[in-house]
Amino acid sequence: MSNNLLKGKRGIVFGALNEMSIAWKVAERAVEEGAIITLTNTPVACRMGTVTELSKRLNAELIPADATNVDDLEMVFSKSQEALGGKIDFVLHSIGMSPNVRKKRTYDDLDYNLLSSTLDISAISFHKMIQIAKKMDAIAEGGSILALTYVASQRTFYGYNDMADAKSLLESIARSFGYIYGREKGVRINTVSQSPTMTTAGSGIKGFDGLMDFSDKMSPLGNATADECANYCIVMFSDLTRKVTMQNLFHDGGFSSMGMSLRAMNQYNKSFDEFKDENGNLIYG
Amino acid sequence: MSNNLLKGKRGIVFGALNEMSIAWKVAERAVEEGAIITLTNTPVACRMGTVTELSKRLNAELIPADATNVDDLEMVFSKSQEALGGKIDFVLHSIGMSPNVRKKRTYDDLDYNLLSSTLDISAISFHKMIQIAKKMDAIAEGGSILALTYVASQRTFYGYNDMADAKSLLESIARSFGYIYGREKGVRINTVSQSPTMTTAGSGIKGFDGLMDFSDKMSPLGNATADECANYCIVMFSDLTRKVTMQNLFHDGGFSSMGMSLRAMNQYNKSFDEFKDENGNLIYG
Amino acid sequence: MSNNLLKGKRGIVFGALNEMSIAWKVAERAVEEGAIITLTNTPVACRMGTVTELSKRLNAELIPADATNVDDLEMVFSKSQEALGGKIDFVLHSIGMSPNVRKKRTYDDLDYNLLSSTLDISAISFHKMIQIAKKMDAIAEGGSILALTYVASQRTFYGYNDMADAKSLLESIARSFGYIYGREKGVRINTVSQSPTMTTAGSGIKGFDGLMDFSDKMSPLGNATADECANYCIVMFSDLTRKVTMQNLFHDGGFSSMGMSLRAMNQYNKSFDEFKDENGNLIYG
Amino acid sequence: MSNNLLKGKRGIVFGALNEMSIAWKVAERAVEEGAIITLTNTPVACRMGTVTELSKRLNAELIPADATNVDDLEMVFSKSQEALGGKIDFVLHSIGMSPNVRKKRTYDDLDYNLLSSTLDISAISFHKMIQIAKKMDAIAEGGSILALTYVASQRTFYGYNDMADAKSLLESIARSFGYIYGREKGVRINTVSQSPTMTTAGSGIKGFDGLMDFSDKMSPLGNATADECANYCIVMFSDLTRKVTMQNLFHDGGFSSMGMSLRAMNQYNKSFDEFKDENGNLIYG
Repeated sequence: MSNNLLKGKRGIVFGALNEMSIAWKVAERAVEEGAIITLTNTPVACRMGTVTELSKRLNAELIPADATNVDDLEMVFSKSQEALGGKIDFVLHSIGMSPNVRKKRTYDDLDYNLLSSTLDISAISFHKMIQIAKKMDAIAEGGSILALTYVASQRTFYGYNDMADAKSLLESIARSFGYIYGREKGVRINTVSQSPTMTTAGSGIKGFDGLMDFSDKMSPLGNATADECANYCIVMFSDLTRKVTMQNLFHDGGFSSMGMSLRAMNQYNKSFDEFKDENGNLIYG
Repeated sequence: MSNNLLKGKRGIVFGALNEMSIAWKVAERAVEEGAIITLTNTPVACRMGTVTELSKRLNAELIPADATNVDDLEMVFSKSQEALGGKIDFVLHSIGMSPNVRKKRTYDDLDYNLLSSTLDISAISFHKMIQIAKKMDAIAEGGSILALTYVASQRTFYGYNDMADAKSLLESIARSFGYIYGREKGVRINTVSQSPTMTTAGSGIKGFDGLMDFSDKMSPLGNATADECANYCIVMFSDLTRKVTMQNLFHDGGFSSMGMSLRAMNQYNKSFDEFKDENGNLIYG
Repeated sequence: MSNNLLKGKRGIVFGALNEMSIAWKVAERAVEEGAIITLTNTPVACRMGTVTELSKRLNAELIPADATNVDDLEMVFSKSQEALGGKIDFVLHSIGMSPNVRKKRTYDDLDYNLLSSTLDISAISFHKMIQIAKKMDAIAEGGSILALTYVASQRTFYGYNDMADAKSLLESIARSFGYIYGREKGVRINTVSQSPTMTTAGSGIKGFDGLMDFSDKMSPLGNATADECANYCIVMFSDLTRKVTMQNLFHDGGFSSMGMSLRAMNQYNKSFDEFKDENGNLIYG
Repeated sequence: MSNNLLKGKRGIVFGALNEMSIAWKVAERAVEEGAIITLTNTPVACRMGTVTELSKRLNAELIPADATNVDDLEMVFSKSQEALGGKIDFVLHSIGMSPNVRKKRTYDDLDYNLLSSTLDISAISFHKMIQIAKKMDAIAEGGSILALTYVASQRTFYGYNDMADAKSLLESIARSFGYIYGREKGVRINTVSQSPTMTTAGSGIKGFDGLMDFSDKMSPLGNATADECANYCIVMFSDLTRKVTMQNLFHDGGFSSMGMSLRAMNQYNKSFDEFKDENGNLIYG
């Protein structure tokens, strides 16, 4: 079931951790569509083993690297071009982590060193990656760069904490650099704003279960899965989308354009059941 | 508690029906802030009596008129200038009605004649009003024109039906005409996107109670009331906002910028209470 | 150079006029990607001949129909299902016309009967098309419906007149119906917001040359062509984008995310050349 | 010409430098409207003298402080409450600076330590300010916090560099914290997105003259001045806007809703004058 959409293309996938990862699915689908790729993740993540297995299966070199370190990034682009035999056509940035969330620091009690880390890991790494690539002239004319993001950058979600700010910064970087890399090399830079997804990262967010359900019921097509997201990324890497740039593309079953669905409202209204009289009218306080 | 923000200004308020109406509150507050005004509504609405009482109390001429009829609109601007002794400084458009909703036609079974009426009453009336005013040169340099709208123009709300499309059209008219009337006469045109409000109009919408509760719990400041909306309109009519134009201004306690609040999520999660095991875990299926 | 993205799919293309039309390119590309299609346009447009040639070349039945007429639309869906042997997988709406623009009525001097026509032809036809299709259950589960639009729906462009309002209405309809058709049949509805394109329709807009140049210089990737737009439409019809719905998708070389580019600014600044002194400083007044 | 809009209110104004500063105007207008305030800026800025003069004239204590330093911020809120005799009702954040811009580092050659400074000074200082204030419970119920921003956070402007990313982060912080401070204390947090303004900060931006002209010609009401911006800030500090929160409010004469104006297009088209033949047609190539 391949359409050969990426035939002859070379790509780098940042952030595949395990088979729940969107990046993992993107790597699989990219190869299926004819691309040759390299994989990269932190040294710790690489040692955890599952990525090694993916690397072997896809015949994709695995390059341990810290995406916040410019030397490491230079090495990634250098090794990737070597391994793949030419300039890079597409890059996926699927990296995000908030030490403040991990340490259970609430948004009104942030540790500012940890905030710097959140921004550095989840957003500035994207700038570093692109700046290094551009300096090395490592991206082929008309190449495509994507980062994964979440609608929390536009609308506040309880518990998403400083990751919301990091995602806003990430999307801004996509626009700012999209302008420059576009005008100079025809390289397009976009973000895909994906439904909440039950990945290892996603499952760490407070109250994620309820949010997944609400999001699913709000979205006319339901939440988009990691597999579906991978398909969308393939499309954005292909030559069929060469004039799309500086965009934040919602891949979310319609969630972002919903205010209230019948399904979500019905579910919400059930919460009042015990407060209703025999005629179904709400008994207020 | 007046700040004399509209001292010496002349205004027209379209759409005051009864004391629940936002337009009613705006009329009261405008006079309180030093303005002299006229009131207008459909002949039927005018005959219902309460507006007459307001008209007397505020010493504001009541002009029955059909806002979809250009001759009537011309008459409104003509009589208003006469009654108020000069050009008009501010206009409020608080008009909206969907015959499709009234006839319980769902969005996938619209009657197209009724759709035309929805658009004509709720949106095109705004264009007619402005076009007539501009042709008559009835608005003073630096004047301010406002229409009330709802976030359903940007995000879909179950049951809001073709009113969502009408509100989108209304907001577009504000931009399109804001450009022209701005460059030529310094007249600003904006829309205020208000929280769901328990007016006579609002209460006709399907499942409005649940939506009001959800909206209130989602909004960090709670739903904005009609009184608070009137204050915001006064501000937008005053000389302190003379460079704000072509904007859709959310007056909604923060709702429009929310994805999910803790309060709404907690309420939502209660709906699952009966499906939880003794450890609080959701029992699926 | 086909990727078989639409293999086995059935589609209807509204609005192909001549080889400059985006709809024309979409028709060609759809067939190239493995789809079978029907073509439809107004009886007048069909008689003009070039579409007949396309129809023959693509082996696509040409169905003359007025897209504002529900009986005609029913006939289109009926004949198309017959001709193609099953339910429809994708539909392109590429229809827009403003009689006010044609009659040179400016936005502050609109004829309201003509405004009704603008909205009916350019926006409500989209609702009619979808409502009819849904009532006939003519769209296959997971089908994709697209309409072409322009950024003037969000930002005001001099001379675009009541087409801006029509496009806002069109995009709202895509959201409103996207919710309903999505939740019930998994059908997605989106709009593609395309660069200004030198089609027969586009070339009728006042000052279009200058705007094309400005738009091109503002967009880091330059204006998107009709051919490129066709590629993007194909992608949105394919199964790789099944969770994208209720979106307005910019296909514009980045224009929509630009405030000011160096190229456009340099061009703009040239306009002051004759007002500069020997040191290059602007001489005001 | 006071409306007593801030009678009895206590405020802190961050960032007044000289009489061109928006913060300077806000300070003057706030006092005029009945508020008592303190002023704060960096020790260096305070030593430059003009702020001292303002401080005396307005009878407003001047508190030198580094807005990136949490201890300094704590001191500002502590001293301000002491000086003003109670909790703070409003705060203006008018702080922004990019060391990368100063050092002429282009966006594809950023120094990452300098980027950290840009973000820390221009955006994270806003979070620090609010977090400190909330921990000290220094803001009165229903208080209003504003930061100044620019449309470059949504659309890319040539030369605005990493300040665009900083402004995106700033606006995200306003939303994220607006949710929390709103639900807990009814405090509203917004950003005002102002026209390009010929302040000391503004005038440092590359090609600012041309941009000012373009922006002015694009905006139907022309660029908004610093004085007008101050009026808008007063309104947002007053009790008349208590349900507006988490918003980015454009105060820009309509610029943000414009795609192309006649005036800007005419000016742009003049740049081609020397390339036109005797009939006014453009000679390409």
